[in-house]
Amino acid sequence: VSGFVSLVGAGPGDPELLTLRALRRLREADLVLNDALVQTELLELAPKAQRFFVGKRAGRHSIDQDGIHRLMIRAAERGQRVVRLKCGDPFVFGRGGEEALALEAAGIAYEVVPGVSSAIAAPALAGIPVTHRGIASGFAVVSGHAETVFAPILDGIAPGAMTIVVLMGVTTRGAIAARLIARGWCTNTPAALVYGASHPGSLTWIGNLGSLGEASFDSELPAVLVIGEVVALSEQIVFGRLDMSELIAAHP
Amino acid sequence: VSGFVSLVGAGPGDPELLTLRALRRLREADLVLNDALVQTELLELAPKAQRFFVGKRAGRHSIDQDGIHRLMIRAAERGQRVVRLKCGDPFVFGRGGEEALALEAAGIAYEVVPGVSSAIAAPALAGIPVTHRGIASGFAVVSGHAETVFAPILDGIAPGAMTIVVLMGVTTRGAIAARLIARGWCTNTPAALVYGASHPGSLTWIGNLGSLGEASFDSELPAVLVIGEVVALSEQIVFGRLDMSELIAAHP
Repeated sequence: VSGFVSLVGAGPGDPELLTLRALRRLREADLVLNDALVQTELLELAPKAQRFFVGKRAGRHSIDQDGIHRLMIRAAERGQRVVRLKCGDPFVFGRGGEEALALEAAGIAYEVVPGVSSAIAAPALAGIPVTHRGIASGFAVVSGHAETVFAPILDGIAPGAMTIVVLMGVTTRGAIAARLIARGWCTNTPAALVYGASHPGSLTWIGNLGSLGEASFDSELPAVLVIGEVVALSEQIVFGRLDMSELIAAHP
Repeated sequence: VSGFVSLVGAGPGDPELLTLRALRRLREADLVLNDALVQTELLELAPKAQRFFVGKRAGRHSIDQDGIHRLMIRAAERGQRVVRLKCGDPFVFGRGGEEALALEAAGIAYEVVPGVSSAIAAPALAGIPVTHRGIASGFAVVSGHAETVFAPILDGIAPGAMTIVVLMGVTTRGAIAARLIARGWCTNTPAALVYGASHPGSLTWIGNLGSLGEASFDSELPAVLVIGEVVALSEQIVFGRLDMSELIAAHP
């Protein structure tokens, strides 16, 4: 068996939202390198594999990006089947592109296994379609981890032109809202924070751009921020929900 | 058993890119309503189900949207488990939101099963990460089916601000390129048309905004259009590809 690396998207968290190919790769894996947000249940799908945590812990990387590349390359050179397991999709803010380039440069056989992105799935599971006829004909997906990164992109989008989805934007949500309002977006544009979509204990905050900065939870679950008129549809798309307790409603 | 409707994303086409939940729903389904682009192999995963084609044939809908709603509602009221199977993700230009609203209004139990969106997976499988550190910190997904829909969105994005992915944009690619160039995008901005990603016989055209209008293939496979500097990465991210025949290279 020659070594091989699969850059695999794990989806938003629920093991049922893994793809069939991702499951197959996990089952055959000799080594799994996983990020912080990957659920323990997913790792149990790789019973033969040695597992190595390469994500952030308490805000610090357990290993740097070059270290991850070296681990993958060395294991593949030893003939191992390596799964690099990432939340969501590997090419959506997952540094999957950098890993692909490193594998390519080292002459390692590899592939990408696309996953269900939280950028689309988290809003969907909260009753928010990112596109909707007559309301939004497009959406933008942006990283919220540093103002230097999101500011030029947010400035580049005309107010109300499309739905905006921000990943890794919980701590910067106030700055994001301020930037959009300064750019001309209405303060009453609906906004949602979807925590832990597809995980047990998921919850959704719904408000607007004006109130987004003050939104706060004691949730440690990853959150997806959604901004735009489609957010208001979550009032109607409730999946026949009887128990509304998980919906903290402050509808705009 | 009480009736139930699942709005299911089928992913980009390859049955291995179905989610585990989608597979489970298909296996248990009594009725599957599918669109034109859904592969026959996927329908074979629903052996017990009656299948009903509700997509477009030769540009004409076999049934209108209200008709689809009526079919789903009636079947669920008769106690059937219905799978509404859509390419990619049900809430990305899939009219899934409209179907959810119709089911909600009729008091039918339903759910959404997010899928792998072609907007992300098609570029990925062609070696194009929609985001990449230092090159693109965000991406926009737009429908290219009618100028009235895409023009205001494209005008709303500052030149080069992010990667643009256009679904259903093959026939309008010339108009899209012209609009972006008029908006200030460089004519040599890299662009790719990815035909039939994850399907057998997939192929990728690579050029730039200036040459996009003239790009042409005799492919009947669905295509995804990608515009932005990340497209140039496909030159390097080739998955150790030995056979380059499927890549029609006209790199900018």
